[in-house]
Amino acid sequence: MRLSAYYLPTLRETPAEAQIVSHRLMLRAGMMRQSSAGIYVWLPLGLRVLRNIERIVREEQDAFGCREMLMPTIQPAELWRESGRYDAYGPEMLRIRDRHDRELLYGPTNEEQLTAVFRDTIKSYRQLPKLLYHIQWKFRDEVRPRFGVMRGREFLMKDAYSFDIDRDGAIRAYNKMFVCYLRTFERMGLRAIPMRAETGPIGGDLSHEFVVLADTGESEIAYHRDFLSLSLKNTDIDVDGDLQPIVDRYTANYAATDEQRDRGREAELGDDLIAGRGIEVGHIFYFGTKYSKPMGATVTAATGEEVAVEMGSYGIGVSRLVGAIIEASHDDAGIVWPDAVAPFQIGLINVKADDAECTAAADTVYEQLRAAGVDILYDDRAERPGVKFAEMDLIGVPYQLTVGPRGVKAGTVEWKARRSGERAELPVSAVVNLFVR
Amino acid sequence: MRLSAYYLPTLRETPAEAQIVSHRLMLRAGMMRQSSAGIYVWLPLGLRVLRNIERIVREEQDAFGCREMLMPTIQPAELWRESGRYDAYGPEMLRIRDRHDRELLYGPTNEEQLTAVFRDTIKSYRQLPKLLYHIQWKFRDEVRPRFGVMRGREFLMKDAYSFDIDRDGAIRAYNKMFVCYLRTFERMGLRAIPMRAETGPIGGDLSHEFVVLADTGESEIAYHRDFLSLSLKNTDIDVDGDLQPIVDRYTANYAATDEQRDRGREAELGDDLIAGRGIEVGHIFYFGTKYSKPMGATVTAATGEEVAVEMGSYGIGVSRLVGAIIEASHDDAGIVWPDAVAPFQIGLINVKADDAECTAAADTVYEQLRAAGVDILYDDRAERPGVKFAEMDLIGVPYQLTVGPRGVKAGTVEWKARRSGERAELPVSAVVNLFVR
Repeated sequence: MRLSAYYLPTLRETPAEAQIVSHRLMLRAGMMRQSSAGIYVWLPLGLRVLRNIERIVREEQDAFGCREMLMPTIQPAELWRESGRYDAYGPEMLRIRDRHDRELLYGPTNEEQLTAVFRDTIKSYRQLPKLLYHIQWKFRDEVRPRFGVMRGREFLMKDAYSFDIDRDGAIRAYNKMFVCYLRTFERMGLRAIPMRAETGPIGGDLSHEFVVLADTGESEIAYHRDFLSLSLKNTDIDVDGDLQPIVDRYTANYAATDEQRDRGREAELGDDLIAGRGIEVGHIFYFGTKYSKPMGATVTAATGEEVAVEMGSYGIGVSRLVGAIIEASHDDAGIVWPDAVAPFQIGLINVKADDAECTAAADTVYEQLRAAGVDILYDDRAERPGVKFAEMDLIGVPYQLTVGPRGVKAGTVEWKARRSGERAELPVSAVVNLFVR
Repeated sequence: MRLSAYYLPTLRETPAEAQIVSHRLMLRAGMMRQSSAGIYVWLPLGLRVLRNIERIVREEQDAFGCREMLMPTIQPAELWRESGRYDAYGPEMLRIRDRHDRELLYGPTNEEQLTAVFRDTIKSYRQLPKLLYHIQWKFRDEVRPRFGVMRGREFLMKDAYSFDIDRDGAIRAYNKMFVCYLRTFERMGLRAIPMRAETGPIGGDLSHEFVVLADTGESEIAYHRDFLSLSLKNTDIDVDGDLQPIVDRYTANYAATDEQRDRGREAELGDDLIAGRGIEVGHIFYFGTKYSKPMGATVTAATGEEVAVEMGSYGIGVSRLVGAIIEASHDDAGIVWPDAVAPFQIGLINVKADDAECTAAADTVYEQLRAAGVDILYDDRAERPGVKFAEMDLIGVPYQLTVGPRGVKAGTVEWKARRSGERAELPVSAVVNLFVR
């Protein structure tokens, strides 16, 4: 993509309304603009990151046997009356009346909606288990929306729902999603620690939050040092096999959010305890028959009797992750994207756009990499080099290539890794081979 | 995908509430379920088609130099007060008050929202032209929603917006989108005829509807016979070149929707006139400074003066297209998907799931095609063959492969083209080669 033909309205000044670093950097890097309080317009650069995160979430949901569907944003109030949550939910639910004065709401979550579809379509234990998910915009009418996409009103969430004939099946589904989440966040370059959590308005008796470590995070957390070396990298995962050993490995050690901390256990841990800050990016729940019973979502069991299905739900904050990744990965110059979610893999800078030789060389590198299918942003504008370097650092593209008059004479371009700052002069041919697999 | 592990709740009975064929077939084929009036849950099969249509729309928008972004579903009322459309829009606009009693609305279109972002980010003619688009859910509170996704309340639309320094630039953008739309619909296997249209609440003095031919269509149309042989197949399209000749080719002949018909011209056409029915799937508008002037979206021109930008907007009904394609392509047995949008390319039927040899053969075909990256739906259920054949016809997968005991002995499978009904007995190896490119 040529920057001259792109739409990347960066800001030089830090917007006064932005209190946290991800909010500031998303505005400055031209990723988004505010529409109204807690509601954002995603500009092209921001949307690219959002879509990359969404793609990873989708691929991992699919890999673990979840089937994608799509529920609407607007739900009828009567569904929530059936579960008893319509009045219980409070003012965070955006309530709407249509032209016929029927009560609607902008869905903050979808347990009722999917339970209603399930009861109309699934009648027998033979059709179970089922794991269904969707990725859809949701609305939560926060009193004081702030922190950008980290606590917006309109936000993109992946929510999955499991339906099983009994508790054992439901725990298998829970474990699937547990391991799926570990792999999802690890693929994004994040260290996410599962922590026992309160179940809140979703309900149930088993629940884990997945918390990303970030010094600027919203909540205080404490966890065992060993979490810092846990990884699924060398673990064979059979998604249809017994995942309990992996769940056990990730729940054996102490980890707690502020409300759940156990000072006694923490004292015993001594030097193994790390106190820090984190950001919740996922939350999974097992709540049994909390929705299936009042809503009549039953199936015929092998014994012939009608039983209410055992359910769980599993959320990932897709738009929140954009902010969370920035909180976990930035420096004084701007964002530092992990490769897997970066909006472009390479940022190419032409230092002297008014120099024909320099521009010809930069054009060639651009065309070769583009032809090879590399996602590349090419700063071909007639701006000062300092502006170009600063903006490329700000938007956080993982690798930078700089074409300047001196290099052109020597047949080289400068390569720089955004994260480490490492630099090298490379022959043009080597650069192309480096990124073309 | 194994059907036993999929979620495809088909219906044997035709739902009473569905008045038109696409609505009936989408419900019967397990593509969607109603949530409330005019609001639908997209089940996995329906979502696959929706995503295929969305992908084609996106690829063609990108190819013509549109940049993708994403605006929120909920907009502040004050933006619409600036353009004067808040009161003018009438009861089809879903108006909302949040917990602080601020007026919001569920966007039916996005001229105001994007004009507001534009005026904050683009200051100079040097940054023009710009063509921006998004694909987002919208809401129109129809008095009597019906006809399924063809006239739903919550619907998915692609809307693009062009910003140019003068009328000539705006017409170039209009022509780009005109040709882009022709190519987009042709790729979906549709014949869409551009027709001069009224501009309605969007405004402006130049507008075309793109109308798909379908005997069951909502509107009466009349057009010159030559449209039936027009195609872009052998046309070289330079998206940055002069597209006026292509636009001229598609606007030279008479074509009109019911409100725009000219009985005089029609009489002259004689036998060249075809009267039929159609469905509007796209609509493009050039409206100059209708929004930029009242909202103050100006740029500095080369002369130094501040000028209001010239704008157009360009919509495609993405979710409506799912219904429109079915209206244009079905038979008594069910849907007949064009290859480009089909939810799966191949439907594989195991006639005797309780026969070990037959199942082993079907499994092998399935695994080989799947490994080759072919989108395949494998009916591995223990159902009667008649049920399987009927469902595979109903859901409209373009090619069917049937593995039965007789074929297994001979080392063959039966191949059938859904559209033509053509059948052939093919050796297993030939089948795999047929679909693997």
